[in-house]
Amino acid sequence: MINMDALYDAVAARGPVCVGLDTSIEYIPQQELARADTDQAALLGFNRTIIDATIDVCACYKVQIAYYEALGLAGLHVYAETLRYIRRRGALVIADIKRGDIADTAARYARAHLEGDFEADFVTLSPYMGMDSMEPWLDQVRTRGKGAFVLMRTSNQGRHDFQERMLADGGRLHEAVGDRLDELAARYRGDRGYGAIGAVVGCTEPDEAASIRRRRAGLFLLIPGYGAQGGGAAGAALLLRGGNGGIVNASRSILRAWTAWPGGQQADFALVAESARGATATMRDDIAAACAAGGQ
Amino acid sequence: MINMDALYDAVAARGPVCVGLDTSIEYIPQQELARADTDQAALLGFNRTIIDATIDVCACYKVQIAYYEALGLAGLHVYAETLRYIRRRGALVIADIKRGDIADTAARYARAHLEGDFEADFVTLSPYMGMDSMEPWLDQVRTRGKGAFVLMRTSNQGRHDFQERMLADGGRLHEAVGDRLDELAARYRGDRGYGAIGAVVGCTEPDEAASIRRRRAGLFLLIPGYGAQGGGAAGAALLLRGGNGGIVNASRSILRAWTAWPGGQQADFALVAESARGATATMRDDIAAACAAGGQ
Repeated sequence: MINMDALYDAVAARGPVCVGLDTSIEYIPQQELARADTDQAALLGFNRTIIDATIDVCACYKVQIAYYEALGLAGLHVYAETLRYIRRRGALVIADIKRGDIADTAARYARAHLEGDFEADFVTLSPYMGMDSMEPWLDQVRTRGKGAFVLMRTSNQGRHDFQERMLADGGRLHEAVGDRLDELAARYRGDRGYGAIGAVVGCTEPDEAASIRRRRAGLFLLIPGYGAQGGGAAGAALLLRGGNGGIVNASRSILRAWTAWPGGQQADFALVAESARGATATMRDDIAAACAAGGQ
Repeated sequence: MINMDALYDAVAARGPVCVGLDTSIEYIPQQELARADTDQAALLGFNRTIIDATIDVCACYKVQIAYYEALGLAGLHVYAETLRYIRRRGALVIADIKRGDIADTAARYARAHLEGDFEADFVTLSPYMGMDSMEPWLDQVRTRGKGAFVLMRTSNQGRHDFQERMLADGGRLHEAVGDRLDELAARYRGDRGYGAIGAVVGCTEPDEAASIRRRRAGLFLLIPGYGAQGGGAAGAALLLRGGNGGIVNASRSILRAWTAWPGGQQADFALVAESARGATATMRDDIAAACAAGGQ
């Protein structure tokens, strides 16, 4: 069974929320920061709190490496420890690294992020350099069941600069990327009908979501941008094919849920845990309701 | 004076070769590996050897982070030490990281790679997510003179998958990227006529090189692929506008020059130094000859 099958099963069991550990020092309650020996210890304690609190109401975790790199070597130590903790708890983790480089370099990156200190179950990739930049990652798909999500159509405004450009032979650039990802997914298809290589497709309006989903039957989707840029549960439900066709990422709304709770000034990790779990469960239920209401 | 001006002056003084420190443990002579306490010490000793040997015959260095990430936290320590060594010696360094992410994340990456443990003078970026993914990097251009090279037209075969696709309103995708980079370069132009944001343009055949150079007068170019894929000194000379319009990267041909020298079996860092310096000077002279022969 490849990791994409395990992710499908996790969604079936616990819903499609992907908890994004884009953790910043400002997200940690004052008294917990004061209590910790170092900022790194506080960050790791915060991440463990979030993971423990959400592990039975989410499908998986996504860790955005930039937030850790910004703290230098000490931050990357927290990054490695966070990945290790998630995997030791038996959950799946996506390394959000958006790499894309020539084949020799891609092979090094695959070693970096699918083995060793920074081992994850999935990575995110960027397609600009073309399909030969993805090939070396596929060795780890074949031999160890690893997976990847490739940027296709993101939810930021900047997508209009290149991704949404019309091509001379028809379709938009992100559709050309999607066509090539379909081919890859067909080459490496798991037992649940989805390929080991999925796509990043931002939350969007229902019309577009339905059209993307129809064309990309074999691609399991990583869906960022939930609750932002007008993309909500209805769009997500359509991308999820009314149930199980991807995961929906949220980060700040879960990590910072405690700031909206009464007593936030006195907040500790217990409040962080309770509020994060609540936010994750609510998001899962909202998406389930939208799926039931017709996101077929 | 912005870093791109300093790089221009470095090319004027010492030629356009950019030494790529894509260092792999296999590139280190056996006896030096045996002598070192750890692989990390050997890697750092090798990098320092190359830097010391080439610093007066090259324009700058480019460090490909993948080769260090592949060794986990210990490798990233070598990466940080290598950047620090280059900067302490007064040379310019490009962090080859090819990042591209939404603005909040890009701001974290900018902190990671233009400050602190991993501070470089320039970074490489990937344009797929659009121009808003580049904006946060520009803060460091404005305040500290930093620079970036954005992927435009690479030299790998995979460029045909997306970069070379024709757009419905004319031109190829990489030309659309180039147009947007021209705008950025015009917003942040240095004293030598080039923008703080340059472009990655792979070595190519003379015809295409001449056409790209003509259209991108304001872009200082980072040119990889020298000696590979048919792109040699003639193409590079045209991209360099017959003199000073970019830097030409070479890595393996410099780092592994010692393997082709007599006595390679008994090689030590002294031979690594002499051969690397020779390879760098020869490449510089070949490009200068091609420039003199008409790469105007």
